[in-house]
Amino acid sequence: MFDPIEKLKEYVRHASVSADSKFADGMVGAQNFLTSLFKEIGFTVQSVPTALHPVIVAKRIGDKSWPHVIIYGHYDVQPADPLPLWKTPPFEPTIKGGRMYGRGTADNKGPLLAHVTAVGQLLEENPDLRLNITFVVEGEEEIGSKNFKNFLRKNKKLLDGDFIFMSDTGIPSPDQLVVTVGLRGMLAFEIELTGPKTDLHSGMNGGVLMNPLQALAELCATLHTPDGRVNIPGFYKDVVEPEKWEREQLKKAGLKKAAYQKFLGIPKFHTPPGYNPFEAIRFLPTLEFNGFSGGYQGEGTKTVIPSKASAKVTCRLVPNQTPENVKDAVFNAIKKRCPKGVTLKIHEQHVATPYVVIPPDRSNTPKHQAPRLAACFRALDEAAMEVWGKEALYLREGGSVGLIADIKTVLGLDAVMMGMFLPQDNLHAPNESFHLGVMKKGIATSKRVLGKLAAS
Amino acid sequence: MFDPIEKLKEYVRHASVSADSKFADGMVGAQNFLTSLFKEIGFTVQSVPTALHPVIVAKRIGDKSWPHVIIYGHYDVQPADPLPLWKTPPFEPTIKGGRMYGRGTADNKGPLLAHVTAVGQLLEENPDLRLNITFVVEGEEEIGSKNFKNFLRKNKKLLDGDFIFMSDTGIPSPDQLVVTVGLRGMLAFEIELTGPKTDLHSGMNGGVLMNPLQALAELCATLHTPDGRVNIPGFYKDVVEPEKWEREQLKKAGLKKAAYQKFLGIPKFHTPPGYNPFEAIRFLPTLEFNGFSGGYQGEGTKTVIPSKASAKVTCRLVPNQTPENVKDAVFNAIKKRCPKGVTLKIHEQHVATPYVVIPPDRSNTPKHQAPRLAACFRALDEAAMEVWGKEALYLREGGSVGLIADIKTVLGLDAVMMGMFLPQDNLHAPNESFHLGVMKKGIATSKRVLGKLAAS
Repeated sequence: MFDPIEKLKEYVRHASVSADSKFADGMVGAQNFLTSLFKEIGFTVQSVPTALHPVIVAKRIGDKSWPHVIIYGHYDVQPADPLPLWKTPPFEPTIKGGRMYGRGTADNKGPLLAHVTAVGQLLEENPDLRLNITFVVEGEEEIGSKNFKNFLRKNKKLLDGDFIFMSDTGIPSPDQLVVTVGLRGMLAFEIELTGPKTDLHSGMNGGVLMNPLQALAELCATLHTPDGRVNIPGFYKDVVEPEKWEREQLKKAGLKKAAYQKFLGIPKFHTPPGYNPFEAIRFLPTLEFNGFSGGYQGEGTKTVIPSKASAKVTCRLVPNQTPENVKDAVFNAIKKRCPKGVTLKIHEQHVATPYVVIPPDRSNTPKHQAPRLAACFRALDEAAMEVWGKEALYLREGGSVGLIADIKTVLGLDAVMMGMFLPQDNLHAPNESFHLGVMKKGIATSKRVLGKLAAS
Repeated sequence: MFDPIEKLKEYVRHASVSADSKFADGMVGAQNFLTSLFKEIGFTVQSVPTALHPVIVAKRIGDKSWPHVIIYGHYDVQPADPLPLWKTPPFEPTIKGGRMYGRGTADNKGPLLAHVTAVGQLLEENPDLRLNITFVVEGEEEIGSKNFKNFLRKNKKLLDGDFIFMSDTGIPSPDQLVVTVGLRGMLAFEIELTGPKTDLHSGMNGGVLMNPLQALAELCATLHTPDGRVNIPGFYKDVVEPEKWEREQLKKAGLKKAAYQKFLGIPKFHTPPGYNPFEAIRFLPTLEFNGFSGGYQGEGTKTVIPSKASAKVTCRLVPNQTPENVKDAVFNAIKKRCPKGVTLKIHEQHVATPYVVIPPDRSNTPKHQAPRLAACFRALDEAAMEVWGKEALYLREGGSVGLIADIKTVLGLDAVMMGMFLPQDNLHAPNESFHLGVMKKGIATSKRVLGKLAAS
């Protein structure tokens, strides 16, 4: 069997930046690397073309009656810029202080390689392992998985597994395994207000018309209540209260308000009543302004009344909200409240459905769950105690990962998201690194989970 | 005597763009042109250096007991960009359809030359004219008269006249003389709100803190009432109601609401109660947003909660408001209303005092007025009837011209602003031109005004 550290070095040397066509060689290099790697552990491999970067699919299929786990990962990485801030070359992996430095070490080459290593070791020890395994490794995660949903739609038969197993989420410390069981959804749009047909001189014309910037402020100011809730009728209608066990899991994570406030650098929190900040991020929807523009933004003064003003907005959604229902409620409120004297346009941008998966034996109101998914969670519970020496925590996160919702929508499959990167790993930033101790635990955990699953 | 048209052509050929050091030759050319021109009509000339472009001062001083009129103008012009939009070369004057095309023809070379021509003709006809005349022609008007206030302070003795006579304002049509008798003042500042210490991911952190963009919207939304007034205690305290004659003069100007609305391209006007749009622009103060910025402004979506958000604001002021009193009222309201959870900074920018001069024989409550200023207004009334065949209109304008307030503040002198350019003259835009019929009337009017003044 290969040495996972040496393999990871080799993998990281392929500069597979999906966003930049100058890195085409690195993309092809990473694809070829994966093909060889999967062949080395006895898998059949195919490269499935998409409109941009192909998806690598590797299979080990035995008997149809066995459980079938689909392991997801991505071989593309973020651009390394700004290069001068790197202390070691981003595509020349360097080990220091128990970490491997290099672009993509943590996101997502190291975690994927942990699973491949686990599978390789398992099969070496037990060539007759009663488990069907499919690896699906895409090349566009860092550019929004643009073609992945289409790939899923076209290749349902390739992906007829029981659930997804993956590691592209985080853990709070090298001692605590966290399984992500929920992600917020998204509704992104832009409000554009048009007043006069051209920019006007504010001396010659100021005081006779509704200034689009003023209208924007007055409109946006109606969208929240003073206590921090979203002020739109029906916005919270479909929101499901978190269950008791979820609040308890979160408490066990031991997150500290004072440390979080210091990290944010804010004088005070501003959360809706009944929720602490860690709960609000995970269990409540939001409406956030991401950008305002309009008029003059340079140095000094320009006495202009702009023709247009706009606001970029994203709503984060939680179960059981849907982008469609929230869109109706939000757009209706905005249309109704838009000040007179300007013309409103709402530009729809992307959406993502919120996602949650309830692990078994925890909910007071247990839902029907696929038995093999439940078996995977139970195997993970046991493996966490064996490898990490304490219970795994099951937490929702505040972010949105569209591909998880896409997999659920297109394939009907849930995901077991076993965290493997740390807050210190500098994802998407200079000097990204991966904790090799966590990698070792990740390999051991994955190996036990898959072994238990095969034996179940 | 010279031919004013030929002289204007020569003057316009000097590309005196004050904003761009590449046009240094044009600036010097215009200075030398003026020096020769003033010498040609018998004046003594000096070039008074400033921190950037010198001021040309030309004098014809006889007896101290005579009236002393100071004629203001500027020899610098706006940049000609974008050049491809010019139909004729901007610095090669071209006459077509009774207009001379070229950068600076209307702003301000033509109008100044009208006064110089008038003075030259007057002195040719009557070399013993009982009038002291000083021309003050600055070279930085198009870049905000940056050094002009300092020039005024240092050269009070050079400028010990009775009042200012000038033509750097507009008329609505070639048939109607308008004298500008008021300009709004200005208070410019920027509101800067800081929330978290760095930009944050709106998924990971959205819903727990006050977003600076939201705070900006909520703060700015408090600054106006629904009926279009500024919603700040004390804002209108010092505002003097326009006199009856002012509303009447405005009515005589025959401005049409429908045409103005079409020009602006707005679905409806939004003026405070009791004022039509033409009155609101001239007689009421405003608070206008000139620019919002903060967060992501590019294509698509970026899920960021920005660290900072800001708004550029200008208040236009009317008599007897002062920038200082308005600043106190506005800044106090903003400080009091700033939402919690963000830190407020107000960056002060420039200020200008509002200006108004009441022509004699019009006000129901006549104020004390310097007799020679009053004589000039009366001369202008008579000249308007003789040259234009109807009464001059005395109107305030909505814009701000800081140098007028500076002259009033530093020298204590009022200004008689005789309009000479038309809305069609394309000031500051490609294909600027000057109406030669208006120039001819301007010469005749100026000549009569100065002649009457000398005889008074």
